[in-house]
Amino acid sequence: MKHDIHAFRDAALAAIAKARAISLARPGEELATRAKFDSSPVTEADLGVERCLRDELGARFPEHGLWGEEYPRVNPDSPYQWIMDPIDGTIAFSRGIPLWGTILGLWYEGAPLVGVIDHAALGRTYHAAKGLGAWVGERRLHVVDLPADVAMTDELMGIGDRPQFARVGRLHHWDALHAAHPRLRSYTDCYGHTLAAQGSIGALADYGLRAWDLAATQLLVEEAGGEYRVVGTAPDPVNEGGTCYDVVLGKPRAVAWMADVIARAARDDK
Amino acid sequence: MKHDIHAFRDAALAAIAKARAISLARPGEELATRAKFDSSPVTEADLGVERCLRDELGARFPEHGLWGEEYPRVNPDSPYQWIMDPIDGTIAFSRGIPLWGTILGLWYEGAPLVGVIDHAALGRTYHAAKGLGAWVGERRLHVVDLPADVAMTDELMGIGDRPQFARVGRLHHWDALHAAHPRLRSYTDCYGHTLAAQGSIGALADYGLRAWDLAATQLLVEEAGGEYRVVGTAPDPVNEGGTCYDVVLGKPRAVAWMADVIARAARDDK
Repeated sequence: MKHDIHAFRDAALAAIAKARAISLARPGEELATRAKFDSSPVTEADLGVERCLRDELGARFPEHGLWGEEYPRVNPDSPYQWIMDPIDGTIAFSRGIPLWGTILGLWYEGAPLVGVIDHAALGRTYHAAKGLGAWVGERRLHVVDLPADVAMTDELMGIGDRPQFARVGRLHHWDALHAAHPRLRSYTDCYGHTLAAQGSIGALADYGLRAWDLAATQLLVEEAGGEYRVVGTAPDPVNEGGTCYDVVLGKPRAVAWMADVIARAARDDK
Repeated sequence: MKHDIHAFRDAALAAIAKARAISLARPGEELATRAKFDSSPVTEADLGVERCLRDELGARFPEHGLWGEEYPRVNPDSPYQWIMDPIDGTIAFSRGIPLWGTILGLWYEGAPLVGVIDHAALGRTYHAAKGLGAWVGERRLHVVDLPADVAMTDELMGIGDRPQFARVGRLHHWDALHAAHPRLRSYTDCYGHTLAAQGSIGALADYGLRAWDLAATQLLVEEAGGEYRVVGTAPDPVNEGGTCYDVVLGKPRAVAWMADVIARAARDDK
């Protein structure tokens, strides 16, 4: 199958640029001054961004599948599936923390062709297309592996949100990673994924993710020269029939080290 | 004592604006692609920014004290002390993570008059002056306390870098806070302080800090309507004769709750 990868990527970036006007319309930083958590602005932005992405991509590729959290699937049997998470990081978004992102990926028969993570509030768009590299804006991303003689404890490592480890019953993996490494920082949601894709952290362990949370990550990391591994799956406790994925991504040696810590912790799982 | 607070604040902001050209001269994000940690660009930026701040403030206020990490103290007996941390968050800076900041505070006889935290790579300058409020750019910051009926576990809370709890021998406080709250996220360095000052998180617990790490924080938080508490001190294990401070800051009810968790953990300290 010969794909017009350039056209797909350009369509994804054009849709993301349009959606950005919606996600930035409610100035997230002003939400922070609300005393009580109020999810309505998030819901509004979530629905608006997904509607926009669906309209743009549906008009351009009417036979492609559209799959996001907020609306029913369209063309679920198409080999082409656009997978999206309109606001990944709703807690950050709702609290005026600019580390959320809009995620969009195009998959063909289960393999990724295009991936975009747009940190709209930071003004940084990360994108990758199969064979065309990974980029932030106009700058190409290169994940350089760690030299063999670097102590893993000297490398900055990342870990996802603790409640997501709890969601899949693997808080002891969170504990084991902290016991094995003195400097794990929580870089939650897709912000941790783009840090790994640009080599800012050695590796990230992120647990309990849905398909749309991961729509762009594998391609971004692999096209940058990094490694992406699924280290566990679990039935989704919220969405019936769905699956949650535990992933490790980043510099190959750091990923191998982290996966090893996790494998040792997982021996106790049964 | 009548201070010209406006003049002090304007001088602080002018010095920070000048220093920004130096901290941003080495595009931090490109450093991330280095395989191995290399501290030389950090050291260079650290020295350059502190030199710039000292030159600007020293020329304007030759009798004031200047106190930073990188050079000897100037006029240490002056009642006015400019305290600075040129690059707070050197790990983030060196890894291309834009969540570092330049910190500058003016203190008079031990009380803060002006405080600035400049997240240069994010394009956000947080500043406060005694009696003039706390601001990010042109937007005034208001920390609104939590309603009495909100469950603390529903509020997003922040925690500083784990190695800093270890530095002062209080990793069990880190554990106790995680045991008490399911959703603590690590927001390290002064980035966590500005999130607390804008009400994005309920409260932040940050440990093992030096005077220059805290040069601006108390004033920013208090002028925004929040609360700032020192919950512990310890001899600085690195700088002889120095002191490390453990602080909790944010919305008053959240600060009280966190301080209570810490007080219970601290009963085991003796």
